[in-house]
Amino acid sequence: MKSSKISFNSIGIIHSPFKKIERIPIQPSAAKDIKGTIELREELIEGLKDLDGFSHIILLYHFHLSKEYSLSVVPFLDDTSHGVFATRAPRRPNSIGLSVVKLLKIEKHILYIENVDVIDGTPLLDIKPYVKEFENLEDLRIGWLSEKTKKTINMKADNRFK
Amino acid sequence: MKSSKISFNSIGIIHSPFKKIERIPIQPSAAKDIKGTIELREELIEGLKDLDGFSHIILLYHFHLSKEYSLSVVPFLDDTSHGVFATRAPRRPNSIGLSVVKLLKIEKHILYIENVDVIDGTPLLDIKPYVKEFENLEDLRIGWLSEKTKKTINMKADNRFK
Repeated sequence: MKSSKISFNSIGIIHSPFKKIERIPIQPSAAKDIKGTIELREELIEGLKDLDGFSHIILLYHFHLSKEYSLSVVPFLDDTSHGVFATRAPRRPNSIGLSVVKLLKIEKHILYIENVDVIDGTPLLDIKPYVKEFENLEDLRIGWLSEKTKKTINMKADNRFK
Repeated sequence: MKSSKISFNSIGIIHSPFKKIERIPIQPSAAKDIKGTIELREELIEGLKDLDGFSHIILLYHFHLSKEYSLSVVPFLDDTSHGVFATRAPRRPNSIGLSVVKLLKIEKHILYIENVDVIDGTPLLDIKPYVKEFENLEDLRIGWLSEKTKKTINMKADNRFK
């Protein structure tokens, strides 16, 4: 199979209190109350209309510090290796990150957000409204993570995905 | 703000019964029981280890038929316009789609999936495990969509985002 090359331009920058990878919370669930902002490119401001009606938004962003990918990773939440697609680790073939954050308010092209788990300066790729009803989620199973998710609270990243 | 250019390569192809945009269900919630497959690039197969423990996976893919973006869109679920970031419409500045699908089984580099709402031949960018616990979702509000989400069932796309 030939892979097709796809190019994007960042639509803005995510600002957070985290200046170093080592201190970033693991997942928004561990980043409760951590505040940040999104600085959207000003020419895109029209695209924000009515977004303020949503309490939560999905951010897609570029793990811009992740240089190479590995197909097997030992994620922060475990000490054995898993396939990278069975984890949220940054070192993915396409280093796209996903976080659901709380939207506090929008002022012009600045979005004030909470539960931020990304490093300061992260290039933003997309914003989508979070709508639980769009998914069919009966019989949810979460594999190797089922015993680990409680651990995210207070967990911080280390150097392993630099 | 300068935007940074980011390039990705597709990691596989999503196959679905939908050969034309006009017949695609609106969101996985309207695509219940629709089966499809993911053909992952064979050299990435190691990345699938332990993914089969998850009942649901997040697909990030390229809306490859979406040519230009609009900042204001009239989404399928409404007849008034909204900012594109307050919708899931394909014509986004970065045309990345997101669907949560059910994972039925994995055989080598082929993933069998259900609740598929994308067109046949869609280039896949990433697979992530769906883990509800990663999100802090208290006090969820879904803005203009709150009266519309029931409508997705049995709704099909039309030509507007071609």
